[in-house]
Amino acid sequence: MAVSVGESEKYLLNRHKEHHFTAGEIVRDIIIGVSDGLTVPFALAAGLSGANASSSIILTAGIAEVAAGAISMGLGGYLAAKSESDHYYRELRREQEEIDTIPDTEAAEVAEILAEYGVEPHEYGPVVNALRKNPKAWLDFMMKFELGLDKPDPRRALQSALTIAIAYVLGGLVPLFPYMFIPVAGKAVVASVILTILALLIFGFAKGYFTGNKPVWSALQTALIGAIASAAAYGMAKAVQGL
Amino acid sequence: MAVSVGESEKYLLNRHKEHHFTAGEIVRDIIIGVSDGLTVPFALAAGLSGANASSSIILTAGIAEVAAGAISMGLGGYLAAKSESDHYYRELRREQEEIDTIPDTEAAEVAEILAEYGVEPHEYGPVVNALRKNPKAWLDFMMKFELGLDKPDPRRALQSALTIAIAYVLGGLVPLFPYMFIPVAGKAVVASVILTILALLIFGFAKGYFTGNKPVWSALQTALIGAIASAAAYGMAKAVQGL
Repeated sequence: MAVSVGESEKYLLNRHKEHHFTAGEIVRDIIIGVSDGLTVPFALAAGLSGANASSSIILTAGIAEVAAGAISMGLGGYLAAKSESDHYYRELRREQEEIDTIPDTEAAEVAEILAEYGVEPHEYGPVVNALRKNPKAWLDFMMKFELGLDKPDPRRALQSALTIAIAYVLGGLVPLFPYMFIPVAGKAVVASVILTILALLIFGFAKGYFTGNKPVWSALQTALIGAIASAAAYGMAKAVQGL
Repeated sequence: MAVSVGESEKYLLNRHKEHHFTAGEIVRDIIIGVSDGLTVPFALAAGLSGANASSSIILTAGIAEVAAGAISMGLGGYLAAKSESDHYYRELRREQEEIDTIPDTEAAEVAEILAEYGVEPHEYGPVVNALRKNPKAWLDFMMKFELGLDKPDPRRALQSALTIAIAYVLGGLVPLFPYMFIPVAGKAVVASVILTILALLIFGFAKGYFTGNKPVWSALQTALIGAIASAAAYGMAKAVQGL
């Protein structure tokens, strides 16, 4: 869109490059998938070994969980992104309709938005009129500033589904790896715990780094979640077996 | 905040009550928890029964998965909400600092934001000056209109964690219920499938209703995800057993 800003302003804007952090949606999807993938199958396997299951049944349960979790989270992510985008276009049609049928009311809404920031009617009046003269820009303005909705990326839903699913599978295979080679569950679980805690620390560090949070703190938090989840799964499994 | 809007505008705003749908965050958390809770333990149990596991080991695995999943998703939700709020306050401090140290640049950014909607310098000038006279409102304006960030609710993180975890447990117990009473896994799985598909249909319908999507379509989609996930888990379990 053509942006008309005064020369001095252009100069200031170019000189001042802002670096506000915003986590990319793909990074967010990878984080969602990997953190759950590393944690849940890990905890499930630990829990089952606590219930004296064989490595083979633990591996079976683990792989089944990874398949189910990847599909459930992937398709869940797909539908979430899809309904978000449906929501956007429903609201877009509604705003368009309101601009066409009750423009005075919509103009009053623009006024109300700016008034909330202490801007006086004689100050925002020209802006309201400028938008009324440009219905397309007015619609964009209402979508963003009244409803806070951004235009969704059409490829987002599918991309999100695949990213989450693949990330979940990759994360989920880490804790199951030892069970593939160590037939005695009691021994395999030790290797699985060490391997997964290590993976959780590395992943947590990377997560903190990419999301602008303290990497070390994030690494410890992430590993702690895995430990708590598997301890709970272990306890529940033992309890159920005790019945 | 004191809102100063012209009388005629006030009248229009009151007369026109908008009903833009926005899914409440709690509803969203319940949906996340229940849909995964209904799907994954269901698929895991179906998968294990496909691998000729006993009802007792299936129940053990299922309960362990529910415990692990609830904690992983709950704590995951907690940390996500937490880091979102941390992100907000980091950006808030940054904007405050910029308004204090490089006000002309920040003013130019306000101009740029409005210029994107085809508003001319002589039209947005008064608004920019009004904001400069009111730094508090100016900061709010930048947070919302430059960065699109809303002030996070401090209780959100904990509330989100508990909502997701409880929803996951409630959803996860449904498919496991039959295994508690039917010792023969081959019989229990049939009851579990019927019970869970029914629950997925009802949940999907409610989900569609609350998120403003077609309820029947949502019910079918939700049940389909559960079916696909459990079919995949069943197949993977059979494959692993076949090794």
